[in-house]
Amino acid sequence: MLASGACERIGEGDSTFTFKTKDVNQRLTLAILNHRTAISLVLGTLLAHQDDAPIDAIGHRIVHGGSYFKDSCVVDDTVIRKIEEIAPLAPLHNYAAASVIESCREVLPQVPSVVCFDTSFHSTIPEVAYRYPLPDDLCESLQLRKYGFHGISHRYVAMTCDQLTEGRCHRLISCHLGNGSSISAIKDGVCVDTTMGFTPLDGLMMGTRCGSIDPAAVTYIIENTDYNAHDIDMIMNKKSGLLAVSGLTNDIRDLIDASEHGDRRSQLALDMFGYDTRKYIGMMWAVMGGVDTLAFTAGAGQNSPDIRRLALAGMEGLGFKIDETLNAQHRDEPWRISADDSEVEIYVIPAGEEYMIALDVKRLLGGD
Amino acid sequence: MLASGACERIGEGDSTFTFKTKDVNQRLTLAILNHRTAISLVLGTLLAHQDDAPIDAIGHRIVHGGSYFKDSCVVDDTVIRKIEEIAPLAPLHNYAAASVIESCREVLPQVPSVVCFDTSFHSTIPEVAYRYPLPDDLCESLQLRKYGFHGISHRYVAMTCDQLTEGRCHRLISCHLGNGSSISAIKDGVCVDTTMGFTPLDGLMMGTRCGSIDPAAVTYIIENTDYNAHDIDMIMNKKSGLLAVSGLTNDIRDLIDASEHGDRRSQLALDMFGYDTRKYIGMMWAVMGGVDTLAFTAGAGQNSPDIRRLALAGMEGLGFKIDETLNAQHRDEPWRISADDSEVEIYVIPAGEEYMIALDVKRLLGGD
Repeated sequence: MLASGACERIGEGDSTFTFKTKDVNQRLTLAILNHRTAISLVLGTLLAHQDDAPIDAIGHRIVHGGSYFKDSCVVDDTVIRKIEEIAPLAPLHNYAAASVIESCREVLPQVPSVVCFDTSFHSTIPEVAYRYPLPDDLCESLQLRKYGFHGISHRYVAMTCDQLTEGRCHRLISCHLGNGSSISAIKDGVCVDTTMGFTPLDGLMMGTRCGSIDPAAVTYIIENTDYNAHDIDMIMNKKSGLLAVSGLTNDIRDLIDASEHGDRRSQLALDMFGYDTRKYIGMMWAVMGGVDTLAFTAGAGQNSPDIRRLALAGMEGLGFKIDETLNAQHRDEPWRISADDSEVEIYVIPAGEEYMIALDVKRLLGGD
Repeated sequence: MLASGACERIGEGDSTFTFKTKDVNQRLTLAILNHRTAISLVLGTLLAHQDDAPIDAIGHRIVHGGSYFKDSCVVDDTVIRKIEEIAPLAPLHNYAAASVIESCREVLPQVPSVVCFDTSFHSTIPEVAYRYPLPDDLCESLQLRKYGFHGISHRYVAMTCDQLTEGRCHRLISCHLGNGSSISAIKDGVCVDTTMGFTPLDGLMMGTRCGSIDPAAVTYIIENTDYNAHDIDMIMNKKSGLLAVSGLTNDIRDLIDASEHGDRRSQLALDMFGYDTRKYIGMMWAVMGGVDTLAFTAGAGQNSPDIRRLALAGMEGLGFKIDETLNAQHRDEPWRISADDSEVEIYVIPAGEEYMIALDVKRLLGGD
């Protein structure tokens, strides 16, 4: 990696822009009005530092590819139109992404863009798993189905596990555990099921998201409070999960600290998270008819030995046996944490979404 | 059993009353206005036939016991008040049940009543499994949590499996598969988790219920259609599930027929039902750290070899191995269907909710 950076709090007046190379490490606080301004700032800064490495191509991560984008692709007018067409499924993300792509084409018209979707890797999930048993007209008119997310991350995990196990990885459970969390079942590199659904709310409880709850609880809340559907959506996405149960924070490190100091609610939040993880590991085990490899990735998955221990607590007898010395380590490269006599090989894979995007750019545009 | 019967379509003008003893088999079509009228009809008929067996006690099945009723109990004024207090959680059922109990006390003031709740058996589920990760104030004010249902049936299955296995049944998965379906994890007779939630909608897809879907799909439907929360609740409970996917029927026998005649959508509906069942079996396996016994009960569970085969398809390697000769049988008594070399013992247990209620009446009132 030659440079990295981020624009955060766009449109909120106190936006920040961080930029890092081997020589530079800057952090600016300024007003970034919208995503177009943000990408101009990014490109301007990159161009000012491109002396030894001009920009040959741009890779974009897009949250939602609908049922349409089954793979990454090179951007043209049709692709942008399609991303906007799908935007009602992810309004906060896809419109912004489309405007960023268009800005890139304006500023650097000769530089091709490639788009990678968080949903694409899940497009292989069979109908039996992605279909919701709701009436046809609803499913069709609203494009309701399981899409799945974190696909770029899960795909990187699958690729890496295949290399690490030298091809022994036929039935993989990939656990992306961060502030957003999802678990995927991957058979010979092909995703067959995942925990997130129509939106990134479903499945495991997360930092501020409730995950799967009785759908009739949603209608019950609306009918018995003053909240409308939009309010409930906000509550389920922003005010639930670890934050709600602990009453304290959605930060797993802080929850571990608090529970070690005897905070009962933080302990409950962590226990619930571990319990949920085990539940969905069991689900993916059944779906694939077994499992030979399991991997942890993303924030908590790659950095927290406690979370990994919780996620597999009580599952030693089922073939998931962690070596606690290996589990206690911190590394920048993937490593194995399963005991020698564990039936399932267990790995930690530091997240590689940007690397995966770079590989896709190279694959689709050729060159080296 | 000395007599059996049912009042159906109460309040709809063309109600029916069936009554059966070893000598009588009658079916009347008449207008039964409400539950009070229905129970008067039932008691009157029973009293007219009680020559050789007077009514000593009455057992009632109640859908919802809230967090309050952790066991069956003898009815007094407080119990009736409590059942009504909980009624907002199951308005269609609990008010009717309370009126039936009161009618019984009016007509037969000397005869004690015992109430058995569909939720009680699940009251042992630990907080880590029953808590929804939603804000405290919502959970408390609306009593939102996982309750679980079909408890009387699951309890009967647990009791029967304990007898059949002569105490080898320590980790049991009980599959109640009917028009409503749920799966419970039972450790040494104690329920530790179940698939239904705040309402009987959650978990597996069912005849006309969608089961678990992304909760954000519910808010999305409300925000993007003219349906309100009540409409969606109706759709999810009455127009979804096997009925919606097949576009044909919620009757599993008819779906099997149709799929054998090449109907793709009926086949998909059945495949989804089997897939869901396997998913939740895997979940319960993980929750208990393994399983030694699995049982099928209720309509499809006890009568359909096809559904049992679908529910465990591809799980032979995981220790669930059906003997197809045994599976093809139909019996009125419980029987084993697992192959001799199956790690997990698999049984079919014809539903025994009424017998379970009778046992509770005897336990709580003494006598023989």
